[in-house]
Parts: sequence; structure tokens; C-alpha cells
Amino acid sequence: MEHINDMIKAQLEHRTIREYTQDKVPGEIIDLLIKVAERTATSNSMQACSIIRVTDAGIKKELADVCKQEYVARMPELWIFIVDQYRNGRIAAEKDCHEDSISDMDRFFQGFTDACLMAQNVVNAAESLGLGTVYYGSILNDPARTIEILGLPKLTFPVLGLGFGYPNQEPQLKPRMDMRLRMFENKYKCFDNYSELIKEYDEIMQTYYDLRQANKRVDSFSSQVVTKLKNVNPVRQRIVNDIVGQGFDLKLENN
Amino acid sequence: MEHINDMIKAQLEHRTIREYTQDKVPGEIIDLLIKVAERTATSNSMQACSIIRVTDAGIKKELADVCKQEYVARMPELWIFIVDQYRNGRIAAEKDCHEDSISDMDRFFQGFTDACLMAQNVVNAAESLGLGTVYYGSILNDPARTIEILGLPKLTFPVLGLGFGYPNQEPQLKPRMDMRLRMFENKYKCFDNYSELIKEYDEIMQTYYDLRQANKRVDSFSSQVVTKLKNVNPVRQRIVNDIVGQGFDLKLENN
Repeated sequence: MEHINDMIKAQLEHRTIREYTQDKVPGEIIDLLIKVAERTATSNSMQACSIIRVTDAGIKKELADVCKQEYVARMPELWIFIVDQYRNGRIAAEKDCHEDSISDMDRFFQGFTDACLMAQNVVNAAESLGLGTVYYGSILNDPARTIEILGLPKLTFPVLGLGFGYPNQEPQLKPRMDMRLRMFENKYKCFDNYSELIKEYDEIMQTYYDLRQANKRVDSFSSQVVTKLKNVNPVRQRIVNDIVGQGFDLKLENN
Repeated sequence: MEHINDMIKAQLEHRTIREYTQDKVPGEIIDLLIKVAERTATSNSMQACSIIRVTDAGIKKELADVCKQEYVARMPELWIFIVDQYRNGRIAAEKDCHEDSISDMDRFFQGFTDACLMAQNVVNAAESLGLGTVYYGSILNDPARTIEILGLPKLTFPVLGLGFGYPNQEPQLKPRMDMRLRMFENKYKCFDNYSELIKEYDEIMQTYYDLRQANKRVDSFSSQVVTKLKNVNPVRQRIVNDIVGQGFDLKLENN
């Protein structure tokens, strides 16, 4: 296709990299990625997210335990993106403004969105420089523990982790669901025959080899959905309690 | 800097574009952006987000009313990214799996994260092709209304809107807070003198001209934080009630 440039080529070849060489990411590249993070779009210009760059081996190990993924401890770079309304709350307080709107869930979601956009912006920049990346949603396996490990104050909350470095593996491109099932015009479209529509993708998925599972074939997508729905982490299910624990106010109405 | 490539150059020059030429975005570019969206990293491989591409002028106008930004109606392209657990819920149900974990907030946040990552991935691809972009967090000014306009079923939820096209304005780069206030090593760092630390940025912001406000100077960042905290939208503050209304289960514990 005529419009494909290097950037889009990298995006179309995106895959998760879990194993890295021993090479450190040079300081100039780190500085550049921080500049990219800084320039990311932000809700209402409020810049309500922050990054914890984890360099300490002990802290990496503690996070790897939360993630239940031992390779987290071996990430050349490990950045944790967080909602951060603490900073703006303090900036306002130093101006004698103590509005409790700082803790509402609108603010929380603005920060959460900011954090995700920033993470993906860094990923795109990193991949354009030949680095590999891996997201860790698993830092939320135990939000309270992650909060403790990183010393997160009230009005902050972990969103996702990002590992990156120079790839030491070349995983197969993971097949994805046809976007005709995921993109609609003007109104959401419900189908009445998902099993039929997903059949081809289910078959394609079974030809995919996951490097984590040696030569074991992976399940069809439909089967994975069922397995994952049955395999519940009760701590993760109760994430809202952890959000409340960090000082956010749900403003729930009586039903 | 030696590592700056075209991609990173575009990221460092990112600015919000609100006015576009009449030129349509060519179909091949739309197709390419859909491929990029498809390849975005996704939590647990569950692909729990979707896009509504709004092409209907009437629907654009209705969304512009929710956003309280009339230029939304004039976007050459308008894509709304949504949490989508409806699809996987149906896929499971057709396999006789009816686990209620499909509606827990862990699932909600996985979909929310997926939607944000996908949006930013599309933004970077679009900007690398010379398109301008604008995010609309304002679709959440009235989530229930946005849900109604787009016909969103239970277990879906709007996350953010994205407008794009060929820029018809060249806004000034908006100054950002120093990342030393937003990036920390190993542990979160609380400061006790934000007013001092933010002073230089406050002054820089006052030299920035926002095209939306003609020749009116903008407030310092600190003043903006205070103004925005005092200017509350009670509907947005109660966003969690709308999430519950879409069938998600908070699993709140008694305090």
C-alpha cells in the first residue's frame, strides 16, 4: 500500500516482546522517550498522570511477584504509568483551593486516559527506534500491593506497566479478530451469530504458536474467552475498592 | 538529537487541531488506520474495545451538542472508541458460558485501557501521514446521552472521541509541565513546594496563545487547575452511575 511509511510498518508488525538482550537502553533514548511522553495529548491540559521508572532490582522483583510473571524482574526498562491527581491537588491547595472535585471519578478517568495515551505514545516511539515492548496490565493483580511498593500517595493509582529494551526473541505475529466485528458505522451493531462470524478467526488462532507455551498450540479465541471468564481473580474484580481506598469518591446514587 | 526520526519528530510536534480543510481522508488511508487499530496491543488478548465511525451529519451534530463544541460536527472523520465486553459476552454465551465475571470492573478497565491504546496508536499513524487530530473527552459530558446516540448495548461504554483530517490551522505548540515533576525513580516523590517548582511553567503558559481565545492570553497552569476544580460538571462527576447503568458490577465491599 502506497501510504505505508516506516512508522506504520512498525505498528503493523507490533508484537509483545518478553525476552531482551542484556543491552541497556542508552540515556539519550530514555531522554527522548521522556520528551515524547511529555508531549502526549492530555485531558483538559491537566497532565494528570505520572511515570515511575523502576531501576531498583528489588522493586522489580516485588512487582514481578504481583504480576506473577518472573520476566518482569529482568526488564531492561520498566515504567509504571499512574493516574496522578495528587500533584494538581497540591498545586491547588498551595493556592488555598480545597475543592473536593479533585477526587471525583471524572478526574480519575481523565488521569487514567492520560496515562494510557502516554504509554502508547512511548511504545510507538520506542518501536520506531527498534526497541521491543511489553505491557503489564498484571500490575493490577493486586493494586494495593503495587501502590505500597511504589509508595503511591492518595489520589494516584497504577494504570499499567511497560517493559522495553532490545528484543532477544522474534515471536510470530499474533492473529487478530477481523475489524468488521469491532468497527461500526454510526451505531453499534449487534450480531446474532458470533460463533459463525468468529469461526475463521478461531481456526487461525489455533495455528498460532505462543513462545511462552513451547510447541503447544493455543486455544481458539472463543475457547480463550470462556477460559478467561471462568478463571477469575477476585482481587482484580474488586479494583473499585482499591480506587476508593486511594481517596477517590464514586458519588454513587441510590438505586 | 541523533535518534530523532520522522515518527518521533511528529510526536514532539503534536498539537491539537480543531479546524480542518474540506478534503476527505482517502479510503486507503482509512483502511490503513483500521489495520493499525487492529494491531494495537490488547489486555489479555481479549480485544475488548470497538470503534464507532460516525459519518452521519445528524449524529455528528448530536455528539457536538454533548461535547458542547460545535466544531465536532465539522470533523472530516469522527471515531468514538468504546469499552466492549458485549461482544465477548455474546461469544461466550453462544458457547453456553454465562459467567458473571464478564461484567466485573476488571473487565471494564481492560476494555477502557484497550480503547485508549488503540486511539493513541491511530493518532500516531494519522499524524505520521500528515493528518491532524483532536481528542474529545467531552463525549463523557453526558455518558447516558452518548450511549443513546450511538446505540451502545449493555457491557459497552464510551471512552473517548477522535476527530481527524487535513489541518486548516497551525496552532502554537502548547507548553507542558517539566517531566521532573511527573517522572520519578522507584518510588513516587511528593514535594512540599509545588508553587515554587511550577513557577517557571506558570510564566511560560502565560505566553501561550490559544487559537480558541483570539488574542486573549491564557491563565497560568496553577490558575487553570483552580478554575477547573471550581467549574464542576455534576453529570461527569457521577460517571460511575452510568457505568453501573451499562450493566457493570462494582463489587463494592462494606466499609
